[in-house]
Amino acid sequence: MEYTDVVRRRRMVRNYEAGRAVDRATLDGLLELAIRAPSAGFSQGWHFLVLDEPAAISRFWEATTDPDESPDSWLRGLQSAPSLILAMSDKQAYLDRYAQDDKGWTDRDEVHWPIPYWDVDTGMASMLILLGAVDAGLACCFFGVPAEGHDGVHKAFDIPDELRIVGVISLGYPAPDRRSPSLRRGRRQLADVVSYQRYS
Amino acid sequence: MEYTDVVRRRRMVRNYEAGRAVDRATLDGLLELAIRAPSAGFSQGWHFLVLDEPAAISRFWEATTDPDESPDSWLRGLQSAPSLILAMSDKQAYLDRYAQDDKGWTDRDEVHWPIPYWDVDTGMASMLILLGAVDAGLACCFFGVPAEGHDGVHKAFDIPDELRIVGVISLGYPAPDRRSPSLRRGRRQLADVVSYQRYS
Repeated sequence: MEYTDVVRRRRMVRNYEAGRAVDRATLDGLLELAIRAPSAGFSQGWHFLVLDEPAAISRFWEATTDPDESPDSWLRGLQSAPSLILAMSDKQAYLDRYAQDDKGWTDRDEVHWPIPYWDVDTGMASMLILLGAVDAGLACCFFGVPAEGHDGVHKAFDIPDELRIVGVISLGYPAPDRRSPSLRRGRRQLADVVSYQRYS
Repeated sequence: MEYTDVVRRRRMVRNYEAGRAVDRATLDGLLELAIRAPSAGFSQGWHFLVLDEPAAISRFWEATTDPDESPDSWLRGLQSAPSLILAMSDKQAYLDRYAQDDKGWTDRDEVHWPIPYWDVDTGMASMLILLGAVDAGLACCFFGVPAEGHDGVHKAFDIPDELRIVGVISLGYPAPDRRSPSLRRGRRQLADVVSYQRYS
């Protein structure tokens, strides 16, 4: 599909066709796009954990939701996704990369990093997956793990402490869903968010 | 151009055709793509400052480089870009958005935000510009402002304190350039950065 069409068609979908899995070749194709994201110093400090078996998917939702609360329709929809990709960033890979001779920040001090490029670059990689999903005829959503859920997910999947879960991409074939109420806020237009030569 | 071709062709280019500007319609087209990036709660906490006049471009480089050091070939190449887009994030817009009734984090406490989605979302918006540049036949590079340069850039362009410069996108028509030495590190392959069902 034409790039600009992919961008215009992309939206967050929170309901997926029951019983229709995403095959492994399609998932690998999306991940092949992800690893072409740029990264500071070509650090590539990221890891993608794919969950596409029902037991693993259940383990994820158990670690991130309260069993005493019945899921709302939004969560039930997300839980119908047959595949999840956890996009994780590895800060240490960046600090180590920039301690090498050609960069020279051997103190590994985070003061050099006013912007956490490990998270930004992993976000860019996630964007490539989200667009790739549209291009492949899939539906997807990108969402964060609640602050109190990170430890549980790390434990449930043996994720090393140094990896941070930047976001989760749910993937499946689209089923009817309702628009996010947040969209009622309206899109900010260029005149609201762009200025030329000087901030205004 | 097909989406997957755009992703495969994208690379950081650090040298631009002399005297060939990027017209305003093309820049606006790229920004129209950027504002279609997803954002947590549809917060859209971002701002894009476009510099496409020589005086503004010079002001940027004066604020971010040491006048006593002569620029290396990499920096001279970047400085040939006729357009720069400063992609900035606005954390306060997210804290305010999530203090609204439907979210309810009225304490505006950053403990709710283990991941700085203001920076991640602005990174995603930047990714859409980088891909759009390739689609439009332009060359581009994404780079960070050095830690010690942020204050100077804020002053030079009247940027409010609450905005953070996530990155700068240089844009122009491609001129011959040399590959970044960082690429010699090699791309990490799927087997290195992907695991299934459980981290490994």
